[in-house]
Amino acid sequence: MNISVIPTIQEARVEELRRKTVIVIDVLRATSTMLAALANGCHAVIPVETVEQAKELQLPGHLLGGERGCRRIPGFDLGNSPAEYTPQSVGGTVLVMTTTNGTRAIRKAEQAGRILAGSLLNARACARKAQVLGREVVILCSGTRDIFSFEDGLGAGAIVDELVGAAYEAGQSGDSLQVNDFGLAMMHAFRSAKDNLEGALFACENGRRLASLGFREDVIFCSRLNAIDAAPEIVEGRLLLTPTPPS
Amino acid sequence: MNISVIPTIQEARVEELRRKTVIVIDVLRATSTMLAALANGCHAVIPVETVEQAKELQLPGHLLGGERGCRRIPGFDLGNSPAEYTPQSVGGTVLVMTTTNGTRAIRKAEQAGRILAGSLLNARACARKAQVLGREVVILCSGTRDIFSFEDGLGAGAIVDELVGAAYEAGQSGDSLQVNDFGLAMMHAFRSAKDNLEGALFACENGRRLASLGFREDVIFCSRLNAIDAAPEIVEGRLLLTPTPPS
Repeated sequence: MNISVIPTIQEARVEELRRKTVIVIDVLRATSTMLAALANGCHAVIPVETVEQAKELQLPGHLLGGERGCRRIPGFDLGNSPAEYTPQSVGGTVLVMTTTNGTRAIRKAEQAGRILAGSLLNARACARKAQVLGREVVILCSGTRDIFSFEDGLGAGAIVDELVGAAYEAGQSGDSLQVNDFGLAMMHAFRSAKDNLEGALFACENGRRLASLGFREDVIFCSRLNAIDAAPEIVEGRLLLTPTPPS
Repeated sequence: MNISVIPTIQEARVEELRRKTVIVIDVLRATSTMLAALANGCHAVIPVETVEQAKELQLPGHLLGGERGCRRIPGFDLGNSPAEYTPQSVGGTVLVMTTTNGTRAIRKAEQAGRILAGSLLNARACARKAQVLGREVVILCSGTRDIFSFEDGLGAGAIVDELVGAAYEAGQSGDSLQVNDFGLAMMHAFRSAKDNLEGALFACENGRRLASLGFREDVIFCSRLNAIDAAPEIVEGRLLLTPTPPS
């Protein structure tokens, strides 16, 4: 299996994504929030790039969620805090969502064979599903306005670490798993930071900014490694909790 | 102090380098080899981008060194293996050197206030000199044809780790030292890999390629953390062993 980690949306070339399993990561906060919504009973998340697209796609019973500049968009039902996405607020609904970086990354991945939404919350579940799918894996870090964000690197590193660990346990030789240099760097960074992911997230530029804007609890929530055992997948433009087929 | 690590030459913007201390890193092998040359008595290394420039600048008594495709350039005295740069071969000489990535990174840094050549071999010495110089620090990873190379990230991470450790020992608060997200990632990656840097370098794409071409000993040499206590600096186009002023 080949595993590549790409540091930002801008650096992803569409032809590199074709027919692969692409795991899109936006730890603070888009993919973490989408996961929280689905884990709390939301039926589907429709990620779109613009506020206008979100409004156009809103059917009766749909909720609008997302942020610009970290804050809820005027007229939207929900912002981008995972804490807002409770069973009471999103259970049984469909959510149309737009965020600055995460939903853009998902759209960029459209040419992929399979698209999963990953974060620290579901790193292990993503790794397991990627293994079962058996394709080459690309982990696409959303970053922030085309700059690398360390929290996404930690999410990517957590998934690489799981995949490498699983290959090792299966007794596969090093040659059967090739990780690109950026992926090796993220795997090692995760290993160093994993005992204090909360601290690492607060050291990141986005973690510091969110804390200064009053979203400290969001950063703590998003640092919870493997708290959600699900690897949602994009199916016909909608992010769904699809089961992982048996290996 | 602000510290930024930049993953590749391509991503460095000249205006970000002005008036700063720029530490150029090419662990495999350009800056490691230049260090070996200077530590073994070479008076100065003149880094140039092209083979033609190297030949034009060669005065009597100058040696030509460098590589293309990892191998010695036809007609040159020396290749890019640090093992070739012994006291016998380079003592008392001036070396004109061109390599695929490292010398290009040094030229790109020309607008910087001060330019140091760094690697794993002299991470501590680079950190100490950067501290004394007191400017903002940019650590520029050479990469390989505009792709990030993990070994350069480890060199950068080693320097960040030294700077952060020194600030901590000096009792400075976290606010006095700001590290960009990529620098935090490299610092953590270094901390995870530091007990087996040789293994980490052999896992990198460049380490694997050099081993396959017969340069295994070079990779081992370049993995030796803080083996050389010098932070050479570019002065009027020449890399020299300048003393670190007292702090």
